[in-house]
Amino acid sequence: MSSKQGFLNRFPELVQDIIDDIKSTGMPQEAIDWTKKSLEYNVPGGKLNRGISVVDTVKIIRGDAVTDEEIKKAEILGWCVEWLQAFFLVSDDLMDSSITRRGQPCWYQLEGVNLISINDSFILEACIYKLIKKYFRQEDYYVHLLEVFHEVSYQTELGQMVDLLTAPENDVNLDRFSLEKQIFISTFKTAYYSFYLPVGLALYMCGVSDDIQHEKAKEILIPIGQYFQIQDDYLDCYGEPEFIGKIGTDIQDNKCSWLVGQALKRVTEEQREVLKANYGQKNDAKAQVVKDLYKELDLATIYKDYEEATYKSLIDLIKQLDPKILNPEIFLAFLNKIYKRDK
Amino acid sequence: MSSKQGFLNRFPELVQDIIDDIKSTGMPQEAIDWTKKSLEYNVPGGKLNRGISVVDTVKIIRGDAVTDEEIKKAEILGWCVEWLQAFFLVSDDLMDSSITRRGQPCWYQLEGVNLISINDSFILEACIYKLIKKYFRQEDYYVHLLEVFHEVSYQTELGQMVDLLTAPENDVNLDRFSLEKQIFISTFKTAYYSFYLPVGLALYMCGVSDDIQHEKAKEILIPIGQYFQIQDDYLDCYGEPEFIGKIGTDIQDNKCSWLVGQALKRVTEEQREVLKANYGQKNDAKAQVVKDLYKELDLATIYKDYEEATYKSLIDLIKQLDPKILNPEIFLAFLNKIYKRDK
Repeated sequence: MSSKQGFLNRFPELVQDIIDDIKSTGMPQEAIDWTKKSLEYNVPGGKLNRGISVVDTVKIIRGDAVTDEEIKKAEILGWCVEWLQAFFLVSDDLMDSSITRRGQPCWYQLEGVNLISINDSFILEACIYKLIKKYFRQEDYYVHLLEVFHEVSYQTELGQMVDLLTAPENDVNLDRFSLEKQIFISTFKTAYYSFYLPVGLALYMCGVSDDIQHEKAKEILIPIGQYFQIQDDYLDCYGEPEFIGKIGTDIQDNKCSWLVGQALKRVTEEQREVLKANYGQKNDAKAQVVKDLYKELDLATIYKDYEEATYKSLIDLIKQLDPKILNPEIFLAFLNKIYKRDK
Repeated sequence: MSSKQGFLNRFPELVQDIIDDIKSTGMPQEAIDWTKKSLEYNVPGGKLNRGISVVDTVKIIRGDAVTDEEIKKAEILGWCVEWLQAFFLVSDDLMDSSITRRGQPCWYQLEGVNLISINDSFILEACIYKLIKKYFRQEDYYVHLLEVFHEVSYQTELGQMVDLLTAPENDVNLDRFSLEKQIFISTFKTAYYSFYLPVGLALYMCGVSDDIQHEKAKEILIPIGQYFQIQDDYLDCYGEPEFIGKIGTDIQDNKCSWLVGQALKRVTEEQREVLKANYGQKNDAKAQVVKDLYKELDLATIYKDYEEATYKSLIDLIKQLDPKILNPEIFLAFLNKIYKRDK
């Protein structure tokens, strides 16, 4: 069975765990039904890469010796990562006034939900600690699991804060944008929870709890996460819509994207005025003017050079690892999944 | 020095701990300033009863043997309770479209905040775990502190969910109201974090981590919390506005109050129609019709009888405690602070 199928099969029993627990509080039936609907609507439905990579990492570390029990535990922790993401996505969609998510209306857009989605996001977060307590309380790495979820949640929230303050809707100000901010936001809002967290959990599960090893893992995984986000920013503008499955709107949405950060480093005063007059507005003709400017500045080439240099330096970093302590395959799996991706 | 003064003096250094930590991430200055403003606006400013009661409970348990170090630790945990409350109040105010809180505009109402308050509330929550990690990581009760904050947060969120589903604004439906729901909401949304949590934390700090003792404490503190909320509901309607510091609007706000729950148990079909026609509308004349009906049903007397019976049964429960294990003074301190309160 593939990691993905096993992973998907695990979900219903975790939902049942939460529902059984809530039932035991005597909560009214309509609130139990509401919670079940929220979990089933918001937790699965994405690509599940983050969750599955906990399982894949445990398989790489354990090799042929991996047990069914270990896979089950890795699947549960993987779902906790997906639950964490659901917590963030439900609330981000409301904060960003988004319309759709994963091909369906955002949760807060559903009839009767709206601001109740805030509390629903809290409950999604709380489920993580319910599940970890149920399945890991006896493990000597239990407290590490709690701490890493606390730490990564906090980092993601700091990233979201800087994102919200840097690029508020309807208030375009290029002075707030920079490559430094783009890197801060991508590191904190995306890289920690998407790249470090799954590996960090797998390492704890496999008995690696030494801070030094976790720092080493971050030294590779955080740059991979930054690279991933820069690809995202690049594909939003240069990707084929039919291939990436959406039409990019970072320019219209006033995003502090890597592309606009690169552009700002390179523009003449005149070009800066063009950017200022056309960025961050819900107007496709204006967005096209920005794209034309990106072409003038040859940002596609700058991206390709960045990608090659980054890939090379990451491979070098990974090669330096001592395979007896941190298996390079863990990191190659992540890097090769995203190198030169076009969707 | 009173518990309150010492408690207040502790706050600035905890804010500094958080700000120092955030600075170390390289976060842009405007986001650091924003966070500091959010902490100082949202965490203090209430009556601080919940936080101070951690200190008072530790003092009762330790008696003359209490050390400065223990008081400091109790103050920090007390502030964590206040931080938890700030997390809930900031988000509740947004969910409930409230205007003012503690005599100032709600945080989300401030210029430029609005939905960013959702992420600010997450950061308020995350601070709890930052502070506990910094000051308690070495203690053998560390994991109990994490678990009790998880548990109580979850309970409060379940209470808020039932509250939101039972009494949505602009959708009055008395069929959803009942005394059972009022008790569920007051227990989960208020009693666990306001009454059990401070004592639970103090017990862990003083080495009492046995589930049996914590359950015994809950058996007394949860009914005290329910009684407290029923008083709140009573005072909202029957309290003197100049005394309680606000004009009650539970009727206009469509709250599932203890009073409406009692009324629904007692109304004739005709009176139920009157309630239906006048409850939950932003109209003071209609609210007066509901108050007149409460008077007809003599709810004030029913409340006074409830208060006497509850006080008596709680005193009986407290008297049954073995003072060598759970000091009755802990519980009497709570009960006597609220018995016959009129604000």
